[in-house]
Amino acid sequence: MKIAVDAMGGDYAPGVVIEGLTMALCDFPAYDFVLVGPVAKLGFYLEKYGIAGHPRLTLVNADTVCEMSEPSAISLRAKRNSSITVCARLLKEKQVDAMVTPGHTGATVAATKVLVRTLPGIDRPALAASLPAREGRFILMDAGANPDCTPVNLVQFAIMGEIYAQYLFELDRPRIGLLSVGGEDIKGSGLTKETFKLLENMPLNFVGNVEADTVFEGVTDVLICDGFSGNVLLKGVEGLAKSTIFWLKRVLTKNALRLVGAMLAKNAFRELRAFGDADDIGGAPLLGINGICIIGHGSSSPKAVRNAIRVAGECVTFGLNERIVAKLNEAGATTAELGKRLAAEKN
Amino acid sequence: MKIAVDAMGGDYAPGVVIEGLTMALCDFPAYDFVLVGPVAKLGFYLEKYGIAGHPRLTLVNADTVCEMSEPSAISLRAKRNSSITVCARLLKEKQVDAMVTPGHTGATVAATKVLVRTLPGIDRPALAASLPAREGRFILMDAGANPDCTPVNLVQFAIMGEIYAQYLFELDRPRIGLLSVGGEDIKGSGLTKETFKLLENMPLNFVGNVEADTVFEGVTDVLICDGFSGNVLLKGVEGLAKSTIFWLKRVLTKNALRLVGAMLAKNAFRELRAFGDADDIGGAPLLGINGICIIGHGSSSPKAVRNAIRVAGECVTFGLNERIVAKLNEAGATTAELGKRLAAEKN
Repeated sequence: MKIAVDAMGGDYAPGVVIEGLTMALCDFPAYDFVLVGPVAKLGFYLEKYGIAGHPRLTLVNADTVCEMSEPSAISLRAKRNSSITVCARLLKEKQVDAMVTPGHTGATVAATKVLVRTLPGIDRPALAASLPAREGRFILMDAGANPDCTPVNLVQFAIMGEIYAQYLFELDRPRIGLLSVGGEDIKGSGLTKETFKLLENMPLNFVGNVEADTVFEGVTDVLICDGFSGNVLLKGVEGLAKSTIFWLKRVLTKNALRLVGAMLAKNAFRELRAFGDADDIGGAPLLGINGICIIGHGSSSPKAVRNAIRVAGECVTFGLNERIVAKLNEAGATTAELGKRLAAEKN
Repeated sequence: MKIAVDAMGGDYAPGVVIEGLTMALCDFPAYDFVLVGPVAKLGFYLEKYGIAGHPRLTLVNADTVCEMSEPSAISLRAKRNSSITVCARLLKEKQVDAMVTPGHTGATVAATKVLVRTLPGIDRPALAASLPAREGRFILMDAGANPDCTPVNLVQFAIMGEIYAQYLFELDRPRIGLLSVGGEDIKGSGLTKETFKLLENMPLNFVGNVEADTVFEGVTDVLICDGFSGNVLLKGVEGLAKSTIFWLKRVLTKNALRLVGAMLAKNAFRELRAFGDADDIGGAPLLGINGICIIGHGSSSPKAVRNAIRVAGECVTFGLNERIVAKLNEAGATTAELGKRLAAEKN
């Protein structure tokens, strides 16, 4: 098992990444690592964390970095030797089994889509984010890799989501819900109505349309949607969570009595914040590409980097992609077969 | 000024509605009211709140009710004499200037679309919800009336949203943002890219693409989107807010110290809850129909009903619809003119 790690991904690179890698080297003795970045700049941190010259660590040079502020396509055009692009190339050439970057989501999606390509039978990859439910979590996909989707894409997301949930939640038949509006009356958009009909006939535990206000109550294990509304939901709840902390601070600091109350309960607020954290998963896989790629949050902690590496390794061992391809064929859900099915319906 | 009020709208009808109407009769002496519902059942509440036989109150009978659990189209098919449908008919026949229902959003949209029709030059109406920003509020539209939208629809929503924000926030040139994903890189979906180009050339204070995580920071006064992603955002944040209260209770009741802290700060939590309330606005107008229609939350309080009535009256006095039509023509944004513009671009 060999995993490429993008040293330059995220807001606190390379320090945080190398600290996380150090934890992974210790915790996962069966994995080998390729650290990708500007080698000259990495030495200081490798010395600092005591992993310079580690027998299970190889360095691969990448001169440039895709800054978080730069457009996604930068990884393909101006920065062909960025750490993200080099990781994607290693994955494409099967020099590594998986890649991990706590970095630029857009640039990673662009680079892996073009370089690594999709699994046989898959039209588009999808970003599988995980969000907190009242108990446990649920998977939201696509969280933003494809702003425009077809019913074929959404059905394939459902297949990929089932397999990923089988790994992540250790469920045999995870519930698959379709993000929609208006419950049983408006019954959603043209896209969701057509997708609904296809999903009903798939060998999946399809629980039907799910509205966005009930997802946090844990009504589904996997929430399927196009990348536009998925990203709106993900970013919207992130934004509200941040503003809730802001409002909470404001109301709790209004007078001395409340301040004392807030002090007494301060560990509760710390726990509340933790509900949103995905540190124990470490990142969102980009499912459907011909390799394993885990994308962490830009503000990943060392622990999150370590866990993204764990998830990457476990996905390889689980045979995530092999299982996706097998299920896709079993369900008749390859792009070609779904296309035939839709064409037959129209005639 | 005559306003129709749906007595049977909302979860606590007709008691809450009639209590709110009683407040409105007292606070707005210039308005006349038509209360619509099963007359035989209303007497008890009219007596209770002391407004039976009030000189500015007329009763109009409506035998049936669109229950919240019933599909939207019920108002048009099986329940042609429901309180919502009768209100819409009064509005269509200009027997009233405005209607207010704290009721079934879907049924109201369906009934008014078909019976009242749209303003001249408007293709589709939009539901204009208001959400809290860190300071003040912003308008989200379409919040769910149209799951599938065209760029023409979105441009018209922007025009309508500007006028409504001029009334609601008393701003000369409210900022208009387009809900999108990926900031400057992916630049959104096909729909938002085409809409962006049209909005750039409109006489509006268009601030460009806005991502869902920044909207609560107050970066725009009006957020334009299709009704699918708008509803996902609205319901998503409602759902997260509810679950946050759930999580907050759980972490605050874990031990005695935290409980004492929570008791001391309990007014702060009450204030926090209030950030989400829209009681001072009372409801969301359905903009673009040929009349004023305010739709309240199903769980509206009497105060919210009273304020929805205030907003309805103020929208009439403000000349909301006349201003929308004038701006639409000034901007060359009628359905016909935008259609011509798009056709010319393609040639």
